[in-house]
Amino acid sequence: MGTDVYVVGIAGGTGSGKTALTRALHGRFAGDSSLISHDNYYKRRDELSYEQRTKLNYDHPSAFDNDLLVEHLDELLGGRGVDIPVYDFAVHNRSAEALRVAPRRILFLEGLLLLDDARLRERCDLRIYVDTDADVRILRRVKRDVVERGRTIESVERQYLATVKPMHEQYVEATKQYADLVVPEGGYNERAIEIIAGGLAAVIARESDTAPSG
Amino acid sequence: MGTDVYVVGIAGGTGSGKTALTRALHGRFAGDSSLISHDNYYKRRDELSYEQRTKLNYDHPSAFDNDLLVEHLDELLGGRGVDIPVYDFAVHNRSAEALRVAPRRILFLEGLLLLDDARLRERCDLRIYVDTDADVRILRRVKRDVVERGRTIESVERQYLATVKPMHEQYVEATKQYADLVVPEGGYNERAIEIIAGGLAAVIARESDTAPSG
Repeated sequence: MGTDVYVVGIAGGTGSGKTALTRALHGRFAGDSSLISHDNYYKRRDELSYEQRTKLNYDHPSAFDNDLLVEHLDELLGGRGVDIPVYDFAVHNRSAEALRVAPRRILFLEGLLLLDDARLRERCDLRIYVDTDADVRILRRVKRDVVERGRTIESVERQYLATVKPMHEQYVEATKQYADLVVPEGGYNERAIEIIAGGLAAVIARESDTAPSG
Repeated sequence: MGTDVYVVGIAGGTGSGKTALTRALHGRFAGDSSLISHDNYYKRRDELSYEQRTKLNYDHPSAFDNDLLVEHLDELLGGRGVDIPVYDFAVHNRSAEALRVAPRRILFLEGLLLLDDARLRERCDLRIYVDTDADVRILRRVKRDVVERGRTIESVERQYLATVKPMHEQYVEATKQYADLVVPEGGYNERAIEIIAGGLAAVIARESDTAPSG
């Protein structure tokens, strides 16, 4: 059963449209695919105070519990379901909840730094990098954080210049080199979604006749 | 019949692997696709001497007879075959020959500057840019021109620095912004070929039940 899960890794910067791309593809394979966001694997930080946790760099590779994600991927690849952690962004720590993820024909994995860890990369059958100009990305982020989340422009700017931008340039952008496909604009790119969805359908139709039951 | 031809435009720098990608995809749809290289449309230059023709800049958009290509595309899109020109690189001019191209379900168009002309871009249903690092591209070009074509490294270097590189940076690279999909390494990227071929098969299966007969 191990080879029956086809893993699609989708990475890219903040505001690139990678989450929208992932959701669009996941929606095309409803029932036949599962979805894991790397954000669920932010490290548990019980040893730090709330104040200290707000000051952590959430855009650095070390913010993620990749050991746990690798373990979970291997379970899913083996045809077994897993309970993945849920991160509570309000308290900046892992919550007590868990989310059941079943093994399906396609597993979509998405996250800023998903392609930074070699163990994650090598578990992906297809690696996609969503590439969108930095000015377009920050405009989307400002809109999301200010309009939808009620933050001030000054606080968004401060965080962006202090950590988001340098981490993007040093780590996120550097993972583009590992991509099999680069998708400009991500979820806003209908033509790319059409082609990739069709391609995935063909690949899973060819590679196996049966889906894992797990 | 006009909408029955699905046009895939494939652009990218010298040595990027775009021709290999085009051939690989064309091979997957043998019988169902036709292929036109932009190189066939280098302008006729009867008014110049051989000596003058060798000094032309073949990496500039003005080197191509896009009026004729647009005319031919519209014929093919209308379901009619065309006789496309053949360029003779030995004499640096259009030859007396022609090549018959029939309208098929998919038309692959490939060339350095294919996405530079808005009329060509808007006739493409899918635009692909093959993106490969400049150092890898020049290594491939040196190998091809020196080993396969018997040129000296010095002459390859001279032409590369004088026209190929500046034209790439000014015109070719600038067309990446129009791409629906960016394919690193082009024909050397098996995973991308798998997905794109599957995606094209799905698109043409959905969009039409009949192929043009032309």
